[in-house]
Amino acid sequence: MTEERKPLHTLILMPSGRRGRVPHGITVLEAARQLGVEIESICGGRQTCQKCRVRVENGRFDKLGITSAEASLSPRDEKEIALLEKLGTPEMRLSCNARVEGDVLITVPEESRAHKQIIRKSANERAIEVIPTVRQVYVEVDEAQLGEHRGDWGRLQDALTEQWQLEDLSIDLHALRALQPALRQGKRAVTVTLWDGRRVLDVQPGYREGAYGLAVDVGSTTIAAYLCDLRTGELLSSASAMNPQVSYGEDLMSRISFTTSRRDGLEILHTAVIGALNDLIGETVRQAGLRRRQVYEIVLVGNTTMTHILLGINPEELGGAPFALANRDSMDIPARDLGLRLNPAANAHILPAEAGHVGADNVAVLLAEQPYLQDEIILTVDVGTNAEIVLSGEGWLYSASSPTGPAFEGGQISAGMRAAPGAIERVRIDPQSKQPRFRVIGEERWSDEWQLGLEAPPEAQPKHLAAGICGSGIIEVVAELLLSGLLLPDGRFNPAAESPALQWDAERRKAAFILATAEQSASGKPLLITQEDIRNIQLAKAALYAGAKLLMMRAGVERLDRVILAGAFGSYIDPKHALVLGLIPDCALEQIHAVGNAAGDGARIALLNRERRAEATTIARRVRYIETAVDPDFQEQFVLAMHIPHKSDPFPHLKGVLPKESPSPVPRNTRRRRRAATR
Amino acid sequence: MTEERKPLHTLILMPSGRRGRVPHGITVLEAARQLGVEIESICGGRQTCQKCRVRVENGRFDKLGITSAEASLSPRDEKEIALLEKLGTPEMRLSCNARVEGDVLITVPEESRAHKQIIRKSANERAIEVIPTVRQVYVEVDEAQLGEHRGDWGRLQDALTEQWQLEDLSIDLHALRALQPALRQGKRAVTVTLWDGRRVLDVQPGYREGAYGLAVDVGSTTIAAYLCDLRTGELLSSASAMNPQVSYGEDLMSRISFTTSRRDGLEILHTAVIGALNDLIGETVRQAGLRRRQVYEIVLVGNTTMTHILLGINPEELGGAPFALANRDSMDIPARDLGLRLNPAANAHILPAEAGHVGADNVAVLLAEQPYLQDEIILTVDVGTNAEIVLSGEGWLYSASSPTGPAFEGGQISAGMRAAPGAIERVRIDPQSKQPRFRVIGEERWSDEWQLGLEAPPEAQPKHLAAGICGSGIIEVVAELLLSGLLLPDGRFNPAAESPALQWDAERRKAAFILATAEQSASGKPLLITQEDIRNIQLAKAALYAGAKLLMMRAGVERLDRVILAGAFGSYIDPKHALVLGLIPDCALEQIHAVGNAAGDGARIALLNRERRAEATTIARRVRYIETAVDPDFQEQFVLAMHIPHKSDPFPHLKGVLPKESPSPVPRNTRRRRRAATR
Repeated sequence: MTEERKPLHTLILMPSGRRGRVPHGITVLEAARQLGVEIESICGGRQTCQKCRVRVENGRFDKLGITSAEASLSPRDEKEIALLEKLGTPEMRLSCNARVEGDVLITVPEESRAHKQIIRKSANERAIEVIPTVRQVYVEVDEAQLGEHRGDWGRLQDALTEQWQLEDLSIDLHALRALQPALRQGKRAVTVTLWDGRRVLDVQPGYREGAYGLAVDVGSTTIAAYLCDLRTGELLSSASAMNPQVSYGEDLMSRISFTTSRRDGLEILHTAVIGALNDLIGETVRQAGLRRRQVYEIVLVGNTTMTHILLGINPEELGGAPFALANRDSMDIPARDLGLRLNPAANAHILPAEAGHVGADNVAVLLAEQPYLQDEIILTVDVGTNAEIVLSGEGWLYSASSPTGPAFEGGQISAGMRAAPGAIERVRIDPQSKQPRFRVIGEERWSDEWQLGLEAPPEAQPKHLAAGICGSGIIEVVAELLLSGLLLPDGRFNPAAESPALQWDAERRKAAFILATAEQSASGKPLLITQEDIRNIQLAKAALYAGAKLLMMRAGVERLDRVILAGAFGSYIDPKHALVLGLIPDCALEQIHAVGNAAGDGARIALLNRERRAEATTIARRVRYIETAVDPDFQEQFVLAMHIPHKSDPFPHLKGVLPKESPSPVPRNTRRRRRAATR
Repeated sequence: MTEERKPLHTLILMPSGRRGRVPHGITVLEAARQLGVEIESICGGRQTCQKCRVRVENGRFDKLGITSAEASLSPRDEKEIALLEKLGTPEMRLSCNARVEGDVLITVPEESRAHKQIIRKSANERAIEVIPTVRQVYVEVDEAQLGEHRGDWGRLQDALTEQWQLEDLSIDLHALRALQPALRQGKRAVTVTLWDGRRVLDVQPGYREGAYGLAVDVGSTTIAAYLCDLRTGELLSSASAMNPQVSYGEDLMSRISFTTSRRDGLEILHTAVIGALNDLIGETVRQAGLRRRQVYEIVLVGNTTMTHILLGINPEELGGAPFALANRDSMDIPARDLGLRLNPAANAHILPAEAGHVGADNVAVLLAEQPYLQDEIILTVDVGTNAEIVLSGEGWLYSASSPTGPAFEGGQISAGMRAAPGAIERVRIDPQSKQPRFRVIGEERWSDEWQLGLEAPPEAQPKHLAAGICGSGIIEVVAELLLSGLLLPDGRFNPAAESPALQWDAERRKAAFILATAEQSASGKPLLITQEDIRNIQLAKAALYAGAKLLMMRAGVERLDRVILAGAFGSYIDPKHALVLGLIPDCALEQIHAVGNAAGDGARIALLNRERRAEATTIARRVRYIETAVDPDFQEQFVLAMHIPHKSDPFPHLKGVLPKESPSPVPRNTRRRRRAATR
C-alpha cells in the first residue's frame, strides 16, 4: 500500500483539543507532532525512556466526530505490556509504540508533554514554557567495521541525523574525548547532550537522564543561584551569597576605581566573583544530590560592571562618560574559559545589556515581568546597589539607571545587613506609645510576642534574635517613623515628638531610634537607626524617585497605572511603606507589586526557554535609555525628592495616611551629597 | 555625473597581463581587484601600510591598445609624495591613492601582490600560493557617544563591515578583553587579526603588522616545527626535537599499550607532547625574534595515534581491529584548550585522517606532492615509525599503512640515532678493499679525507666525529654491504667474503661490520653494524615493500612510473640504495625522488593556504584504504621481501648493479618475527 492510499483517521488530543486527520498506522507520537503537540521522548521510540505515556479515552464521542467505540490503536506488544505494568499504569499506552488504526481521542498528561510549563510565582503568576537550549537524546550508533573509516564521531553524526534529524553538528573536545569509551561501555548506545541542537557537549554510555542548568543573578552585593532541571524546568535548589567583591568597594564606582587603581585590580575582582560562583555551584548541586558535571549551562545576569568583571573585561570605560560598553550583545562562551567548574563543555550564556548603565539584570527583570506586553503605564524598578528603572506604555520603553548606593541592601546603614535569618524585615511603630515592634527573617512572631530570658519556655522564645536590619526593614522603619510623627519630612528626628525609643543627645540636636533592645538583639547591644542612616536612605530613595520622575517627564506621562518592585529587598517590600517613604511616584496601593528577585527569575526563564533569549535581545535593543548623570531635570528632582515623600509632588493615594507636613527646608548638606551620589 | 555615464579606460596589469575597461576615477587598487588581481592592502587605503605600491609604465603601447603617453593616473598628493620619498621609491605609486584617469599599463611587483607565491623545494618545485586563514586589517572605529549604546564590539563590527565588507563576526573572549584598551591607546584606530574572515582573534592599537603561524609534523620519533610569516609565506625559522613519548614506547603499539596499561598513561603522553610543542614554539619564535602572542595559528599533522594523543583522546581503539578513529575529519579548536602557549586566541588546525592507520601526516604528504594531479602511476611512501604508502594513477588513490618500526629512524639499531650533527648519513664500501667510508651530518668531507689525531691541523679535522647512524645511512650501509658481496641476499653476512671491517666470532657463525673505527667515533668505541641490526632493517623494509606490493596488486598495476620518498630519512635517501635494499618495487632510478619532510611541507601548505585545507578534506575521503593487517597477500609478500631486495620480483632497473644471488633460504626466524611486526 503506498503512502497516498492509506486511510485517514481522526485524532483528537486532550487537553489541548487539537484535532486532525492522520494516516493509518502512524505512531501516536508522530501523529501528535504533526498536529503540533509535542509529546516527550528521549529514547526516540525505543521504549526505553517511558516518557511518552498517554491515556486512550474509550467510548463514542459523537459530537467530536469519533463514532467508533472499538479499540482504535494497534495492540500492545509484550515489551510495552511489561513496561507499563512495571510503571503501575497498565491502562496507558506508550505513544511511540501505539499506532493509530481508527478514530481516537487521547489525553496527553502533563508529565508526558514536551515543552512543559512551570508556574513562576510573581505578580502575574506567569508560566514558563520549558524549551531548553540543552537537550539529551538517546542514540544507537553503527558498529565500526574494517574498511569503513567514518570514525566514531562520523558514525555518531550519521546516527543523530538518521534518528533525530540533527545536522551540521560540532563536538566539544571534551565530548570527543568521552565518545569512544562511552560507545564501548554502552555497547554502541549512548545518550548525547546537545547545545542548541548543533553542538555536542557530552556523550554518556547507554540511556542516561539528567541535564541541569544554573541561573545566576550576580548582584553587586548579593549573588543568587538557582539550579533547575532542564527537562522538567523544576527548581531543584537555590543558594545565595555575598558578592566577595564587596570588600574591595561597596558600590560600582568604587569597584571600577579598584580595577584602575592597581595592576591586578581586575584580576582580584574577577577571581573573587568566579570563586563565589564556584562555591554556589557546589552548594546548589550538593543540595540537589547532583554533581557538577551534570550541569551543562549557566545563564548569568548582572549589571554591566558585574558582567564586565565576570568576563575579565576591565570596566574602566563604564566609570566615565560616554560609559562605553565593551559588548552590548548576549554572549555564549565555554564556561571553562571563565574558570567556572561545571561540565567541562558547559556553555555560559550572558544576557544582553541595554546601555552603559543598564545591564543584563534589567533585561532579565523585563523578561520576567514583560511589562511591554501590557498597554498600561508601568514603572518597573529593580532596586539594588544601582536602581534600574523602566517606564513602559503602549509600545514604548524607557529606561534609566540611578545610583542609589547599597543602603537598600543594608549597606551604609549602621545596623544594616543582607536579607538572612535574624534580619529585621518588618517594622511597625505604635501610633500611641511610639514604641516599635518588628519581625525578623526566620521567625514568624512579631517581637512583641517574643518571650525572652531564662524563665521563658523554649517554644515561646524566638528562633532568631535581631541581628540587623535588611532592605525592606529599612524602608518600613523610616516610613513608620514618619507616620508616627517621630520623623519630619525633611528627614530630621522631630524634636517635638516624645518616644521612649528615641534617644536624644544632651543638646537635643541629634537623636537615634532604638529599634531593638539589647535583650532582643543577637549581639546583646541595642540596634539603632541613626540620623546618618536616615540621611543615607533619603539619598538612596531620592535617586530612585528622581530617575522614575525623569522617565515620566521624558515619556510625557503624569500618572502610573502600575508599579513593579523587583530586587533583593529581603523578601517583599510593603507598597504602602514604599509610597510613604517616597521611593516611587504616586500609584494606587493595590497596583504596587513586589516581585522579589525578578532578575533571577528572568535568568531562569532564559535558562529554560531558548526562544525567550531572542526576546531578550529584541527588548534590550528596543529600550530607549535616558542618561540621568547629565540631566538637569534629574538634579532638580533629586533635590526635591530628598523630602519624605517628595517636596512638591502630590500623593493622592496617600491621602489621609501621611501626617501633616511641617514646613522645613531641604537639609543643608544635600547639595554636597547629591554630587557624590550622581557619579 | 552618475556611475553609468563615467568614461571607461583600458587598464593592463603586468606581469599577469590581465586587462579590462574600468571606470574613470576608480583607484588602481579597486580596479585591479575587479580584474582579478589582488594587490596587498592592510590599511584599507589609508596610506598607512605602504603595501600596495605599483609601477606605472610610461610610453605608448599601441599594440596593447594604450595609445596615450600622457599621465593617465590622478596626480600624487603631498602625503603620497612624502611616503614614497621615505620608502626610496618616488617613481612608484600607492595603488590605493592613484586613480585611473586614462588608459594605463601598470606593473604590480611581487612584493605588492596579495596571495604571494613561495617556492617549495621538492621533487617538483611547487609554488605555494599564500592565502592564509589568518589575516590582519586596519580599521578606524567610531567614537563612543552618549546616548548611543552599540558597545565597542558593536562599533568595531560596524567599522569592519563598512571598511572591509566583513559580516557575521564573532570575537574571542581574549580579543574582547583587549578591545577597549586598544581603542583607547590607538585613538580609535586598531589592527584586527581575523581567523577565516569571521572570528576576531586579536585587537591591537594603531597600525600593527605581524601575524605568524606554525606548521608542525608530530612524528612518533621526531617533531619538526616551521614558523612562517602568514602575510608573505616566508619560512622564518624551524626546529625539531625528539618526541619525548619515545621514552614510554618506541613504536605506536607500545604507546597505545602505555595508555591502556595505567590510568594516567594518556595524561603522561599528552603532557609530554604538549610540553615538547611548547618548547619548539618557544625555540622557533626566539630564533625569529618574535613573541608567542604573535603566533595566531598552528597546523598540526601526525599519524592517527599521535593526533589522538595530542587531542587528549585515548588511542586505545586504534590498537585493535577495526581500528576505529575517534574522528576522521579536520578540526579547528582553540590552541589554549590543548595547553599550547601561543596567542591565547590562536587556532589549532588538525588535518583530516584517511583511515585508522593513515593519518593527517599522510594527507599532508599528498597535499605537498599532489600525485593525484598526475596521470602517472606514482608510489608515494612516507617512511617513519609507521610507513604510509599511497599508490595513485589516473583518478584513483589507494593507501596502506605498514608497521616498519623505528629502524629507519635509527631505533632498534645498535648504533642508531636520529638525523642530527654527527649522524652517519652516507656510506660507501670499496668494491676492492671492502673498506667503508662515510659522511656525517655537519661535515662535508668523507671520512677517508679526515685527518685525525693531535698532529692533524685543525682545519683538516672533521667538525663532528661519527656519533651514530641515521636512517639514510642505515639504508646505504646495508645496500653497500650487499653490493660489495659482504652480505648475502638472505641477510646473513657472507662467510666466504673477506674484509678487514668484518669481525667474525670464533666459529665464524656471527659477524659485525665496523662502520666507524674507534678513532673516527665520537664515543671512542667503534660503531658496529650487527647481524641483529641487519635483521631489523630486513623486517622494516619487508613491511614497507609488502605494503607497496599489496597496493599494486589491488590496483592491478605491474610497474611504477615514479616513486616519491618522503620522511625524516636524515636529509635524503639515495634512490639506488633504496632499490638495492628492496625498500620499494622496481622503478627507473631517475624517477625515484626523495623529498624530505613532505608531511611538514604539507602542514606548511595548509597553514599558508586556506583553500588547500578543503583540498585535504576531499583527498582524505577519496583515498581507498587497504588494510594490511588482515590481508594474506600482505603476509606472503612480507616473507618474500625479507630477501634483499626481494625473493621473486625482478628488478630490471638494477640490472648489472646487483651481485649474483646465492641460493639461500628465508632465514629461519622470519616466521616468528613476521607475526610480531604485523601488529
